[in-house]
Amino acid sequence: MDFVITLSDHALLPLHRQLYEELRRAILTGRLSPRQRIPSTRALAKSLGISRATVTLSYEQLLSEGYLETAMGSGTFVCAQLPDDLLQSGPVVDDRPSTPRSIQLSTYGATLTSAELIRLPDPALAINFSYGRPAFDQFPMDLWRRLVSRYCHLNPDMMDYATDSGGYFPLREAIARYLSRARAVQCDPQQVIIINGSQQALDLMTRLLVNRDDRVALENPGYLGARRTFLAYGACLCPVPVDASGMVVSDLTAIPDVKLVYVTPSHQFPTGAVLSLPRRLELLAWAQKTGAVILEDDYDSEYRYGGRSATQDNRPIPALQGLDTGSSVIYIGTFSKVLFPALRLGYLVVPPNLVDLVIRAKWLSDRQSPLLEQYVLTDFINEGHLERHIRRMRSLYDQRRHCLVHALTTQLQHRVTILGENAGIHVMVKFHTDLTDAEILSRAAQVDVGLTSAHPYYLNGGASGEFIFGYSELSEPQILEGMRRLASVL
Amino acid sequence: MDFVITLSDHALLPLHRQLYEELRRAILTGRLSPRQRIPSTRALAKSLGISRATVTLSYEQLLSEGYLETAMGSGTFVCAQLPDDLLQSGPVVDDRPSTPRSIQLSTYGATLTSAELIRLPDPALAINFSYGRPAFDQFPMDLWRRLVSRYCHLNPDMMDYATDSGGYFPLREAIARYLSRARAVQCDPQQVIIINGSQQALDLMTRLLVNRDDRVALENPGYLGARRTFLAYGACLCPVPVDASGMVVSDLTAIPDVKLVYVTPSHQFPTGAVLSLPRRLELLAWAQKTGAVILEDDYDSEYRYGGRSATQDNRPIPALQGLDTGSSVIYIGTFSKVLFPALRLGYLVVPPNLVDLVIRAKWLSDRQSPLLEQYVLTDFINEGHLERHIRRMRSLYDQRRHCLVHALTTQLQHRVTILGENAGIHVMVKFHTDLTDAEILSRAAQVDVGLTSAHPYYLNGGASGEFIFGYSELSEPQILEGMRRLASVL
Repeated sequence: MDFVITLSDHALLPLHRQLYEELRRAILTGRLSPRQRIPSTRALAKSLGISRATVTLSYEQLLSEGYLETAMGSGTFVCAQLPDDLLQSGPVVDDRPSTPRSIQLSTYGATLTSAELIRLPDPALAINFSYGRPAFDQFPMDLWRRLVSRYCHLNPDMMDYATDSGGYFPLREAIARYLSRARAVQCDPQQVIIINGSQQALDLMTRLLVNRDDRVALENPGYLGARRTFLAYGACLCPVPVDASGMVVSDLTAIPDVKLVYVTPSHQFPTGAVLSLPRRLELLAWAQKTGAVILEDDYDSEYRYGGRSATQDNRPIPALQGLDTGSSVIYIGTFSKVLFPALRLGYLVVPPNLVDLVIRAKWLSDRQSPLLEQYVLTDFINEGHLERHIRRMRSLYDQRRHCLVHALTTQLQHRVTILGENAGIHVMVKFHTDLTDAEILSRAAQVDVGLTSAHPYYLNGGASGEFIFGYSELSEPQILEGMRRLASVL
Repeated sequence: MDFVITLSDHALLPLHRQLYEELRRAILTGRLSPRQRIPSTRALAKSLGISRATVTLSYEQLLSEGYLETAMGSGTFVCAQLPDDLLQSGPVVDDRPSTPRSIQLSTYGATLTSAELIRLPDPALAINFSYGRPAFDQFPMDLWRRLVSRYCHLNPDMMDYATDSGGYFPLREAIARYLSRARAVQCDPQQVIIINGSQQALDLMTRLLVNRDDRVALENPGYLGARRTFLAYGACLCPVPVDASGMVVSDLTAIPDVKLVYVTPSHQFPTGAVLSLPRRLELLAWAQKTGAVILEDDYDSEYRYGGRSATQDNRPIPALQGLDTGSSVIYIGTFSKVLFPALRLGYLVVPPNLVDLVIRAKWLSDRQSPLLEQYVLTDFINEGHLERHIRRMRSLYDQRRHCLVHALTTQLQHRVTILGENAGIHVMVKFHTDLTDAEILSRAAQVDVGLTSAHPYYLNGGASGEFIFGYSELSEPQILEGMRRLASVL
C-alpha cells in the first residue's frame, strides 16, 4: 500500500483498533479504492512490526462491517459496493471541527465519532412509502386526550422520584397480562421493566451482557439501531443470513462463542420473514446448550394478517419467550408501532434472575421513565382500548397491505417478487431490473414517490434491487397512485 | 388420535383457540409425534361436536406457525422438522424452569451486581427532613394542567420520531436564553441537549469520556448518583476533600492524569459550600492545562438566599461554564428541583465540538426524550412561569431555611454547627456529641423525626455526626416541632 499507517503504543486505543480506524479512514477518504487489494495479514504485520493476530482482528472487524471483502484464494479487497456518495463526501473522520481543544474520548466515544450518521429524515415527497411509523391519523386521539386529562392534576406520587426504577407497577401488571393473552409470553409483572422505547432496551442489555470483542450474532439484513448499538460497545459482529423462514439458525449454531444473538422472529426486519417453529426450537436448544442469550425484538408483532378471509384467525404467532424453558430469552416490546413513537415507552421482559440487575442499570441510566405517560397507558390497556385499537389497525393495515401487494403485482408483474410474510407494517420486495438502487430511488423521486433501499441493512454489502415499502400511513388511493407512478418510470 | 381434547363452552378462550392450544401442547410435549397424521378437519369436527370452520381455524394457525404441514393429497401431519431433543424435553408450556441458569454478564453488569443498593425509600415518619425534592404542594398545578391540556391533542410532529435527538428545538432555545439570563451560561441552543434528568447526563458523559481505570476526581463527600455511575464504568475514583470554599482544588491539581472531575460548585452536595471564585479560576486553568474535562452539576443552583435584607442581591452565582474559555466544562442542569422529579427532564450544555457526539449517544441510548413534556415546558419557560415560580420558591425556601437554622441554633446551641452557604434546599449540620450516627437516627425516629446521616456520602469513611436536613417540604410549624422533638432526645 502506498500510504502511511501510524500506530502508537501510547494511544488510547489498542493496536488492532488503531489499525482498524486507520484502514477505515483510508477507505472512506478514498486513499484505498474499491476493489483495491490490500496486503495479507502476514505481510502487513511484518511491515508494521506488530503481531499477525492484531492485523487479523482489524481485518475481521472491517470484513464484518463490509469495508473489506475476501475472494476465495485471491486475497482481501476493499469492498466494491461502497456507496459512491459516501466516498465522494471526502474525509469523514478528519473533517471534525477544529474547535478550541479536542477532548479525549473513551473507546465508546471514539467509536461513535466515526460511526455512520444515525438517521436521515425522509425526503419531502408527495407519496412516501416510508416505514416504521403507525398511521397517526388513526390514533384514538379524543380517547387519549381524555385519559391524559384524567392525570393532568398530578398527585404527589406522580411528581416524585419512583421507589422502583422498574416502572409504575400497575402498568407492569397490565403489560404482563396483555403479553400473556396476545403473545403467549409467560412472566410475572416484576419481570416487566418499563423503559424509554426499544432502543433503551438494546442499550441496557448490550451494556450489561457484552464486553468489547464479544461475539454478537444478528440477522443479515437486520435492524440498524441494534447493529449500531453492538458496534458502539465494541462487539464483534457475526452476521447470520435470513431466508424465507427467518434467520438461518444452522448458520448461527456453527459460529463458536456467541455471547448474544439478536432476532426479530415475528416479522424479521426488514425482510418480513417469520421465524419457523423448527428454527425457533433449534435456536432455543442452542442457547440452552451454549449459554448464549437471545434478544427477541418483537417490534411489530401485533400485525399479522390471515389474508383472504375475514374470519380467518390472524392472531400473531407466539413469542420465543413463551417457548423458552431455560431463561435464555430477553424479550423487547415497544408501543412505538401500535401507539406512537414520541411516547417513548417500551418494556423488557427479563428472566427472574436478571430483574434486580436491569433495574439497577435503569436507575443509573436515567432513574425512571416519566410517570404521566405510564399512568395514561395503564388505563388505556386496562380499559381495553389498546387491544381494540390494535384490532382496528390490523384490519386497516391488512387492507393497505393487500392493496399494495396487488398493485405491485399487477403494475410490475414479473418484474417484482414480494418477500416476507403477511404481517407487519412494511413489505420488502425485489425488483428484477438492471437499474441500480440509486437509479431506482432517483427515478421514483422524479415522480414524487419515496421508497427505501434495503442495501444499508446488509452487513458486507447486500443484494441490490431490494426495497422496503411502508404502507401504514398511506390510503389505498395513495398506494395505487404511487404504484402507478412507480411503474411508469421503472 | 389417541389423546383426549378437552374443550369448554365456558372457557375464556374461543373454541378454535382452545383447540389450537391443546394441539400445540400435544405436539410440544410429544403426545403427537413428528410426521404423525392428524384427522381431517371434517373428522375432528365430528368427533368433537364442533363446527368444521372452528377446526379449520385452529389448523391454519398451526400450519402458519410450522407445527403442522400438509402433503398434497394425503392430509395434514405434525411437522417432521421439529428437533428431537426439544420434543423429548417434556412439557414445554407447563413446565417453567425451577432453577434459572446464570447468565454471563459484561464487566459493567458484574460491577452493578455487587454494587450497593441504589435507594432506600424514606421511612414513614411524621416529620421527615428528607432532602432532594421540591415542595410539591407549591407547584402551580392549575397552570401546568392548562399547558398540558393545550398539547393533549397531539399533532403528527408530537407523535413522530424526532429528526434531532438533541430535543425539541424551541425548548433548547428557551433553556439557552434562561441559562444566559439566570446562570451566565454562554451557549448556542444547539449546545443544549435535552435528556431525562441529570442522571442520564452523568451516564452519557461518563460513557463517552471515561475508559475503565481512567481517573475520575470527585468531591468527598459527594453525590452518590455520580459516584455509582463512575464506579459502574470502572473508573478509578480520586476523592478530593471539601471545605467551606468548596472542593479543595489544590488537592485536585496534585493528582496526575485526571480525566474527568465532577463538581457541584453552586451548592456543594451535601455540604452546601459554594466554590469560591479563586478556586473556580484555578480549576479552569488546571483543566485547560491538563486537558481534563469538568462536569459541572448545577442541580439546585436556582436557590441562593441573601439572608438578612430583602434588598440584598440573592441571585445565584454564575456557573463555571460561563467563566470557561477553553471548552473544558460540560454543564448539567435539571428541572427535578425546580419543577418535579418525575418530569424526567434535564439538559446538558456541551462544547460545540461535542454536540454531534452527544446527540449520537443520546440516539443510541433512547433516541429522544418524550415530546409532550418538552412542549409544555417550552411554554412554561417562554411565558415566564418558570422564573416566576423560582422567585416564589426562593422566597419560601429562604424562610424555611431561616426557620430551620434559627431553630437548630436556639434549640441545640453549642451542640451544633451549621455548615455550608445560604443556598439550596437542604442544609448540612454537625452535631457535637458522643452519640454515633445510628444512635442519633434511632433517637430521632423514636420521636417520629427523620433526618439523613452524611456518612454514606463519604468515600473512605467520613466524619461522623454530620447530618443532612432537607427543609423544602416542611412548613415552619413542622420545622419548629421537629427541632423541639430532636432537641429533647439529643
